[in-house]
Amino acid sequence: MKKAVCIISGGMDSALAAFIAKKEGNEIVALHFNYGQRTQKKELECFEKIADALGAKKVVLDTFFIKEIGASSLVDTSLKVRTGGLEDGVPNTYVPYRNGIFISIAAALAEKEGAQSLYLGVMEEDSSGYPDCTESFIKRIENAVNEGTKKETNIAIRTPLVHMTKGDIVKEALLLGVPLEFTWSCYINEDKACGVCDSCRLRVRGFKNAGAEDMIPYA
Amino acid sequence: MKKAVCIISGGMDSALAAFIAKKEGNEIVALHFNYGQRTQKKELECFEKIADALGAKKVVLDTFFIKEIGASSLVDTSLKVRTGGLEDGVPNTYVPYRNGIFISIAAALAEKEGAQSLYLGVMEEDSSGYPDCTESFIKRIENAVNEGTKKETNIAIRTPLVHMTKGDIVKEALLLGVPLEFTWSCYINEDKACGVCDSCRLRVRGFKNAGAEDMIPYA
Repeated sequence: MKKAVCIISGGMDSALAAFIAKKEGNEIVALHFNYGQRTQKKELECFEKIADALGAKKVVLDTFFIKEIGASSLVDTSLKVRTGGLEDGVPNTYVPYRNGIFISIAAALAEKEGAQSLYLGVMEEDSSGYPDCTESFIKRIENAVNEGTKKETNIAIRTPLVHMTKGDIVKEALLLGVPLEFTWSCYINEDKACGVCDSCRLRVRGFKNAGAEDMIPYA
Repeated sequence: MKKAVCIISGGMDSALAAFIAKKEGNEIVALHFNYGQRTQKKELECFEKIADALGAKKVVLDTFFIKEIGASSLVDTSLKVRTGGLEDGVPNTYVPYRNGIFISIAAALAEKEGAQSLYLGVMEEDSSGYPDCTESFIKRIENAVNEGTKKETNIAIRTPLVHMTKGDIVKEALLLGVPLEFTWSCYINEDKACGVCDSCRLRVRGFKNAGAEDMIPYA
Protein backbone atom coordinates (compact mmCIF):
# COMPACT_ATOMS: atom_id res chain seq x y z
CA MET A 1 0.00 0.00 0.00
CA LYS A 2 1.31 3.45 -0.80
CA LYS A 3 1.96 5.75 2.11
CA ALA A 4 1.50 9.51 2.60
CA VAL A 5 2.65 11.84 5.33
CA CYS A 6 -0.12 14.39 5.95
CA ILE A 7 0.63 17.55 7.89
CA ILE A 8 -2.54 18.15 9.92
CA SER A 9 -2.82 21.42 11.83
CA GLY A 10 -6.31 20.95 13.22
CA GLY A 11 -7.83 23.35 10.68
CA MET A 12 -10.26 22.57 7.85
CA ASP A 13 -7.81 22.73 4.96
CA SER A 14 -5.23 20.22 6.13
CA ALA A 15 -8.02 17.92 7.35
CA LEU A 16 -9.55 17.88 3.87
CA ALA A 17 -6.14 17.37 2.25
CA ALA A 18 -5.60 14.31 4.48
CA PHE A 19 -9.04 12.90 3.64
CA ILE A 20 -8.22 13.33 -0.05
CA ALA A 21 -4.94 11.46 0.53
CA LYS A 22 -6.89 8.64 2.16
CA LYS A 23 -9.44 8.58 -0.69
CA GLU A 24 -6.54 8.35 -3.13
CA GLY A 25 -5.58 5.04 -1.54
CA ASN A 26 -2.83 6.02 0.86
CA GLU A 27 -2.00 4.68 4.27
CA ILE A 28 -1.77 7.89 6.34
CA VAL A 29 0.97 9.07 8.68
CA ALA A 30 -0.59 12.11 10.38
CA LEU A 31 1.94 14.72 11.46
CA HIS A 32 1.22 17.60 13.82
CA PHE A 33 3.44 20.35 15.20
CA ASN A 34 3.27 22.06 18.57
CA TYR A 35 5.08 25.37 18.21
CA GLY A 36 3.87 27.58 21.01
CA GLN A 37 1.05 29.07 18.97
CA ARG A 38 -1.83 30.75 20.83
CA THR A 39 -4.29 27.90 20.25
CA GLN A 40 -1.81 25.03 20.54
CA LYS A 41 -3.87 22.96 22.97
CA LYS A 42 -7.06 23.20 20.92
CA GLU A 43 -5.26 22.45 17.65
CA LEU A 44 -3.67 19.33 19.15
CA GLU A 45 -7.08 18.09 20.34
CA CYS A 46 -8.51 18.63 16.87
CA PHE A 47 -5.53 16.87 15.28
CA GLU A 48 -6.11 13.82 17.50
CA LYS A 49 -9.76 13.58 16.48
CA ILE A 50 -9.06 14.07 12.77
CA ALA A 51 -6.23 11.54 12.78
CA ASP A 52 -8.44 9.03 14.62
CA ALA A 53 -11.19 9.56 12.03
CA LEU A 54 -8.61 8.74 9.36
CA GLY A 55 -7.31 5.67 11.19
CA ALA A 56 -3.86 7.24 10.83
CA LYS A 57 -0.58 6.64 12.59
CA LYS A 58 -0.02 9.80 14.66
CA VAL A 59 3.25 11.70 15.01
CA VAL A 60 3.33 14.87 17.14
CA LEU A 61 6.56 16.87 17.15
CA ASP A 62 7.57 19.85 19.28
CA THR A 63 9.07 22.75 17.37
CA PHE A 64 9.13 25.44 20.02
CA PHE A 65 12.09 27.15 18.37
CA ILE A 66 9.43 28.75 16.16
CA LYS A 67 8.13 30.63 19.20
CA GLU A 68 11.72 31.46 20.18
CA ILE A 69 12.34 32.99 16.76
CA GLY A 70 9.02 34.79 17.10
CA ALA A 71 8.26 37.72 14.76
CA SER A 72 4.61 36.64 14.47
CA SER A 73 1.51 37.53 16.44
CA LEU A 74 0.55 33.84 16.45
CA VAL A 75 3.45 33.01 18.76
CA ASP A 76 4.32 36.41 20.28
CA THR A 77 1.44 37.51 22.49
CA SER A 78 2.90 41.02 22.80
CA LEU A 79 1.78 41.53 19.18
CA LYS A 80 -1.92 41.96 18.39
CA VAL A 81 -3.73 39.65 15.97
CA ARG A 82 -5.74 41.94 13.72
CA THR A 83 -9.51 41.59 13.89
CA GLY A 84 -10.57 44.52 11.71
CA GLY A 85 -10.93 42.56 8.49
CA LEU A 86 -8.93 41.03 5.64
CA GLU A 87 -6.46 43.27 3.81
CA ASP A 88 -3.90 42.79 1.05
CA GLY A 89 -0.28 42.10 1.99
CA VAL A 90 1.37 39.79 4.49
CA PRO A 91 -0.31 40.09 7.92
CA ASN A 92 1.58 39.90 11.22
CA THR A 93 0.19 36.40 11.79
CA TYR A 94 2.75 35.26 9.19
CA VAL A 95 5.22 32.93 10.92
CA PRO A 96 8.59 33.24 9.14
CA TYR A 97 8.98 30.38 6.66
CA ARG A 98 6.74 28.10 8.74
CA ASN A 99 5.69 25.88 5.87
CA GLY A 100 9.28 25.62 4.68
CA ILE A 101 10.22 24.34 8.14
CA PHE A 102 7.22 22.02 8.43
CA ILE A 103 7.69 20.58 4.94
CA SER A 104 11.39 19.95 5.61
CA ILE A 105 10.65 18.05 8.81
CA ALA A 106 7.82 16.17 7.11
CA ALA A 107 10.20 15.24 4.29
CA ALA A 108 12.61 13.72 6.81
CA LEU A 109 9.75 11.73 8.31
CA ALA A 110 8.56 10.68 4.84
CA GLU A 111 12.07 9.51 3.98
CA LYS A 112 12.28 7.46 7.17
CA GLU A 113 8.76 6.04 6.66
CA GLY A 114 9.33 5.26 2.99
CA ALA A 115 6.33 7.42 2.05
CA GLN A 116 5.83 8.44 -1.58
CA SER A 117 3.94 11.63 -0.93
CA LEU A 118 3.35 14.49 1.42
CA TYR A 119 -0.06 16.20 1.58
CA LEU A 120 -0.59 19.78 2.68
CA GLY A 121 -3.68 21.95 2.98
CA VAL A 122 -2.13 25.11 1.55
CA MET A 123 -4.42 27.29 -0.54
CA GLU A 124 -3.40 30.24 -2.61
CA GLU A 125 -6.55 32.01 -3.82
CA ASP A 126 -8.66 32.60 -0.74
CA SER A 127 -5.90 32.78 1.83
CA SER A 128 -4.17 35.11 4.25
CA GLY A 129 -1.44 36.14 1.81
CA TYR A 130 1.36 34.01 3.22
CA PRO A 131 4.31 33.59 0.83
CA ASP A 132 4.87 29.97 1.90
CA CYS A 133 1.39 28.90 0.77
CA THR A 134 1.76 29.29 -3.00
CA GLU A 135 2.03 26.70 -5.73
CA SER A 136 5.27 28.22 -6.99
CA PHE A 137 6.84 27.85 -3.54
CA ILE A 138 5.67 24.26 -3.23
CA LYS A 139 7.19 23.37 -6.62
CA ARG A 140 10.51 24.82 -5.56
CA ILE A 141 10.65 23.11 -2.19
CA GLU A 142 9.60 19.78 -3.75
CA ASN A 143 12.56 20.20 -6.05
CA ALA A 144 14.88 20.90 -3.08
CA VAL A 145 13.55 18.00 -1.01
CA ASN A 146 14.15 15.46 -3.77
CA GLU A 147 17.64 16.76 -4.42
CA GLY A 148 18.59 16.79 -0.72
CA THR A 149 17.42 13.30 0.23
CA LYS A 150 18.65 9.84 -0.83
CA LYS A 151 18.47 8.91 -4.52
CA GLU A 152 15.85 6.25 -3.80
CA THR A 153 13.67 8.76 -1.92
CA ASN A 154 11.07 10.40 -4.16
CA ILE A 155 8.47 12.51 -2.42
CA ALA A 156 5.64 14.14 -4.34
CA ILE A 157 4.24 17.16 -2.52
CA ARG A 158 0.48 17.25 -3.05
CA THR A 159 -1.57 20.38 -2.45
CA PRO A 160 -5.06 19.44 -3.67
CA LEU A 161 -6.61 22.62 -2.24
CA VAL A 162 -4.16 25.14 -3.65
CA HIS A 163 -6.60 26.61 -6.19
CA MET A 164 -9.81 26.04 -4.25
CA THR A 165 -11.80 28.71 -2.42
CA LYS A 166 -12.92 28.25 1.19
CA GLY A 167 -16.44 27.68 -0.11
CA ASP A 168 -15.19 24.83 -2.35
CA ILE A 169 -13.30 23.41 0.62
CA VAL A 170 -16.35 23.32 2.87
CA LYS A 171 -18.42 21.66 0.13
CA GLU A 172 -15.76 19.06 -0.66
CA ALA A 173 -15.13 18.38 3.04
CA LEU A 174 -18.83 17.70 3.60
CA LEU A 175 -18.89 15.37 0.58
CA LEU A 176 -15.91 13.38 1.88
CA GLY A 177 -17.19 13.18 5.45
CA VAL A 178 -14.47 15.33 7.01
CA PRO A 179 -15.57 15.99 10.62
CA LEU A 180 -15.53 19.79 10.33
CA GLU A 181 -16.96 20.06 13.84
CA PHE A 182 -13.58 18.75 15.04
CA THR A 183 -11.59 21.41 13.18
CA TRP A 184 -10.46 24.75 14.56
CA SER A 185 -9.54 27.89 12.65
CA CYS A 186 -9.55 30.75 15.17
CA TYR A 187 -6.11 32.30 15.72
CA ILE A 188 -6.99 33.70 19.14
CA ASN A 189 -9.41 31.63 21.25
CA GLU A 190 -9.60 27.99 22.21
CA ASP A 191 -13.15 27.84 23.61
CA LYS A 192 -15.32 29.98 21.36
CA ALA A 193 -14.01 31.15 17.98
CA CYS A 194 -13.66 34.94 17.88
CA GLY A 195 -15.31 35.24 14.47
CA VAL A 196 -13.26 38.31 13.55
CA CYS A 197 -9.62 37.27 13.08
CA ASP A 198 -8.63 36.68 9.45
CA SER A 199 -8.84 32.92 9.86
CA CYS A 200 -12.35 33.05 11.38
CA ARG A 201 -13.48 35.47 8.66
CA LEU A 202 -12.26 33.11 5.94
CA ARG A 203 -13.97 30.16 7.61
CA VAL A 204 -17.26 32.01 8.11
CA ARG A 205 -17.21 33.16 4.48
CA GLY A 206 -16.45 29.61 3.35
CA PHE A 207 -19.46 28.14 5.17
CA LYS A 208 -21.66 30.97 3.91
CA ASN A 209 -20.55 30.46 0.30
CA ALA A 210 -21.09 26.71 0.66
CA GLY A 211 -24.55 27.28 2.09
CA ALA A 212 -23.65 25.11 5.09
CA GLU A 213 -23.85 25.49 8.83
CA ASP A 214 -20.72 25.63 11.00
CA MET A 215 -21.16 23.55 14.17
CA ILE A 216 -18.31 25.06 16.22
CA PRO A 217 -19.13 27.67 18.91
CA TYR A 218 -18.55 31.36 18.18
CA ALA A 219 -18.23 34.13 20.77
CA MET B 1 26.54 46.75 8.35
CA LYS B 2 25.40 43.65 6.50
CA LYS B 3 24.38 40.67 8.56
CA ALA B 4 24.83 36.93 8.11
CA VAL B 5 23.33 33.97 9.91
CA CYS B 6 26.01 31.28 10.26
CA ILE B 7 25.05 27.74 11.16
CA ILE B 8 27.89 26.55 13.40
CA SER B 9 27.94 22.89 14.40
CA GLY B 10 31.15 22.90 16.38
CA GLY B 11 33.09 21.24 13.56
CA MET B 12 35.91 22.68 11.43
CA ASP B 13 33.92 23.33 8.27
CA SER B 14 31.15 25.51 9.65
CA ALA B 15 33.68 27.35 11.84
CA LEU B 16 35.72 28.27 8.77
CA ALA B 17 32.58 29.26 6.85
CA ALA B 18 31.65 31.63 9.69
CA PHE B 19 35.16 33.12 9.80
CA ILE B 20 34.90 33.72 6.03
CA ALA B 21 31.52 35.44 6.59
CA LYS B 22 33.17 37.68 9.18
CA LYS B 23 36.11 38.45 6.87
CA GLU B 24 33.61 39.38 4.18
CA GLY B 25 32.33 42.17 6.41
CA ASN B 26 29.29 40.63 8.03
CA GLU B 27 27.94 41.05 11.51
CA ILE B 28 27.46 37.42 12.60
CA VAL B 29 24.42 35.71 14.10
CA ALA B 30 25.76 32.31 15.15
CA LEU B 31 23.16 29.56 15.11
CA HIS B 32 23.56 26.14 16.70
CA PHE B 33 21.21 23.17 16.96
CA ASN B 34 20.92 20.62 19.73
CA TYR B 35 19.24 17.57 18.25
CA GLY B 36 20.06 14.67 20.51
CA GLN B 37 23.18 13.71 18.59
CA ARG B 38 25.78 11.53 20.34
CA THR B 39 28.25 14.37 20.93
CA GLN B 40 25.69 17.13 21.59
CA LYS B 41 27.33 18.44 24.77
CA LYS B 42 30.79 18.68 23.22
CA GLU B 43 29.48 20.31 20.04
CA LEU B 44 27.63 22.95 22.05
CA GLU B 45 30.79 23.76 24.03
CA CYS B 46 32.73 24.13 20.80
CA PHE B 47 30.00 26.31 19.31
CA GLU B 48 30.17 28.65 22.30
CA LYS B 49 33.94 29.07 21.95
CA ILE B 50 33.83 29.57 18.19
CA ALA B 51 30.96 32.09 18.44
CA ASP B 52 32.82 33.97 21.18
CA ALA B 53 35.95 34.08 19.00
CA LEU B 54 33.79 35.65 16.27
CA GLY B 55 32.16 38.16 18.62
CA ALA B 56 28.84 36.81 17.36
CA LYS B 57 25.32 36.98 18.69
CA LYS B 58 24.52 33.42 19.74
CA VAL B 59 21.27 31.56 19.08
CA VAL B 60 20.93 27.94 20.27
CA LEU B 61 17.77 26.09 19.26
CA ASP B 62 16.52 22.67 20.35
CA THR B 63 15.38 20.40 17.53
CA PHE B 64 14.96 17.11 19.34
CA PHE B 65 12.33 15.96 16.87
CA ILE B 66 15.32 14.94 14.75
CA LYS B 67 16.20 12.31 17.34
CA GLU B 68 12.52 11.32 17.50
CA ILE B 69 12.44 10.76 13.75
CA GLY B 70 15.70 8.86 14.11
CA ALA B 71 16.86 6.63 11.23
CA SER B 72 20.49 7.67 11.77
CA SER B 73 23.28 6.23 13.88
CA LEU B 74 24.15 9.77 15.01
CA VAL B 75 20.93 10.01 17.00
CA ASP B 76 19.90 6.35 17.42
CA THR B 77 22.43 4.65 19.67
CA SER B 78 21.02 1.22 18.81
CA LEU B 79 22.68 1.65 15.40
CA LYS B 80 26.46 1.37 15.08
CA VAL B 81 28.56 4.22 13.66
CA ARG B 82 30.93 2.55 11.21
CA THR B 83 34.62 2.76 12.03
CA GLY B 84 36.06 0.49 9.36
CA GLY B 85 36.87 3.21 6.84
CA LEU B 86 35.31 5.49 4.24
CA GLU B 87 33.18 3.88 1.53
CA ASP B 88 31.04 5.11 -1.34
CA GLY B 89 27.32 5.63 -0.81
CA VAL B 90 25.27 7.22 1.93
CA PRO B 91 26.43 5.97 5.36
CA ASN B 92 24.05 5.34 8.28
CA THR B 93 25.27 8.53 9.95
CA TYR B 94 23.12 10.37 7.38
CA VAL B 95 20.35 12.19 9.28
CA PRO B 96 17.30 12.44 6.99
CA TYR B 97 17.23 15.87 5.32
CA ARG B 98 19.08 17.46 8.25
CA ASN B 99 20.51 20.33 6.25
CA GLY B 100 17.12 21.00 4.67
CA ILE B 101 15.65 21.33 8.15
CA PHE B 102 18.53 23.43 9.49
CA ILE B 103 18.56 25.75 6.48
CA SER B 104 14.79 26.25 6.72
CA ILE B 105 15.00 27.23 10.39
CA ALA B 106 18.02 29.44 9.69
CA ALA B 107 16.07 31.12 6.89
CA ALA B 108 13.26 31.97 9.33
CA LEU B 109 15.85 33.43 11.71
CA ALA B 110 17.51 35.34 8.87
CA GLU B 111 14.14 36.79 7.82
CA LYS B 112 13.44 37.90 11.38
CA GLU B 113 16.94 39.33 11.81
CA GLY B 114 16.94 41.08 8.43
CA ALA B 115 20.08 39.17 7.42
CA GLN B 116 21.15 39.14 3.77
CA SER B 117 22.98 35.85 3.84
CA LEU B 118 23.27 32.48 5.39
CA TYR B 119 26.65 30.70 5.61
CA LEU B 120 27.08 26.95 5.78
CA GLY B 121 30.13 24.71 5.97
CA VAL B 122 28.88 22.07 3.53
CA MET B 123 31.50 20.47 1.30
CA GLU B 124 30.87 18.20 -1.60
CA GLU B 125 34.19 16.74 -2.73
CA ASP B 126 35.83 15.33 0.35
CA SER B 127 32.72 14.52 2.33
CA SER B 128 30.71 11.66 3.76
CA GLY B 129 28.38 11.41 0.75
CA TYR B 130 25.35 13.12 2.25
CA PRO B 131 22.79 14.23 -0.37
CA ASP B 132 21.99 17.44 1.52
CA CYS B 133 25.59 18.70 1.26
CA THR B 134 25.81 19.32 -2.49
CA GLU B 135 25.91 22.55 -4.46
CA SER B 136 22.90 21.50 -6.55
CA PHE B 137 20.82 20.97 -3.40
CA ILE B 138 21.87 24.32 -1.97
CA LYS B 139 20.85 26.11 -5.19
CA ARG B 140 17.42 24.51 -5.07
CA ILE B 141 16.76 25.27 -1.43
CA GLU B 142 17.96 28.86 -1.88
CA ASN B 143 15.37 29.13 -4.62
CA ALA B 144 12.67 27.71 -2.33
CA VAL B 145 13.62 29.94 0.60
CA ASN B 146 13.40 33.12 -1.44
CA GLU B 147 10.05 32.12 -2.93
CA GLY B 148 8.56 31.13 0.43
CA THR B 149 9.51 34.22 2.45
CA LYS B 150 8.39 37.85 2.17
CA LYS B 151 9.09 39.74 -1.08
CA GLU B 152 11.52 42.04 0.72
CA THR B 153 13.44 39.08 2.17
CA ASN B 154 16.39 38.04 0.01
CA ILE B 155 18.73 35.51 1.49
CA ALA B 156 21.86 34.37 -0.33
CA ILE B 157 23.03 30.95 0.80
CA ARG B 158 26.83 30.92 0.84
CA THR B 159 28.83 27.70 0.89
CA PRO B 160 32.44 28.87 0.50
CA LEU B 161 33.83 25.39 1.25
CA VAL B 162 31.67 23.38 -1.11
CA HIS B 163 34.50 22.60 -3.55
CA MET B 164 37.38 22.56 -1.07
CA THR B 165 39.11 19.46 0.27
CA LYS B 166 39.66 18.91 3.98
CA GLY B 167 43.32 19.74 3.44
CA ASP B 168 42.37 23.10 1.86
CA ILE B 169 40.02 23.72 4.79
CA VAL B 170 42.70 23.14 7.43
CA LYS B 171 45.12 25.42 5.57
CA GLU B 172 42.57 28.19 5.09
CA ALA B 173 41.37 27.90 8.69
CA LEU B 174 44.92 28.30 9.97
CA LEU B 175 45.41 31.35 7.71
CA LEU B 176 42.22 33.00 9.04
CA GLY B 177 42.93 32.22 12.68
CA VAL B 178 40.06 29.79 13.19
CA PRO B 179 40.62 28.17 16.61
CA LEU B 180 40.70 24.59 15.32
CA GLU B 181 41.59 23.37 18.81
CA PHE B 182 38.03 24.37 19.79
CA THR B 183 36.40 22.35 17.02
CA TRP B 184 35.13 18.78 17.27
CA SER B 185 34.57 16.28 14.48
CA CYS B 186 34.26 12.86 16.13
CA TYR B 187 30.81 11.31 15.74
CA ILE B 188 31.19 9.02 18.76
CA ASN B 189 33.23 10.40 21.66
CA GLU B 190 33.20 13.67 23.58
CA ASP B 191 36.48 13.37 25.48
CA LYS B 192 39.03 11.85 23.09
CA ALA B 193 38.27 11.64 19.37
CA CYS B 194 38.00 8.01 18.22
CA GLY B 195 40.15 8.59 15.14
CA VAL B 196 38.32 5.91 13.14
CA CYS B 197 34.77 7.13 12.43
CA ASP B 198 34.32 8.69 8.97
CA SER B 199 34.41 12.19 10.39
CA CYS B 200 37.64 11.60 12.33
CA ARG B 201 39.21 9.95 9.28
CA LEU B 202 38.38 12.98 7.11
CA ARG B 203 39.77 15.33 9.75
CA VAL B 204 42.97 13.35 10.23
CA ARG B 205 43.50 13.21 6.46
CA GLY B 206 42.84 16.95 6.22
CA PHE B 207 45.51 17.81 8.79
CA LYS B 208 47.94 15.38 7.18
CA ASN B 209 47.40 16.86 3.71
CA ALA B 210 47.77 20.37 5.11
CA GLY B 211 51.00 19.35 6.87
CA ALA B 212 49.61 20.68 10.14
CA GLU B 213 49.27 19.32 13.66
CA ASP B 214 45.85 18.67 15.20
CA MET B 215 45.74 19.83 18.83
CA ILE B 216 42.66 17.88 19.94
CA PRO B 217 43.11 14.64 21.95
CA TYR B 218 42.75 11.29 20.18
CA ALA B 219 42.04 7.95 21.85
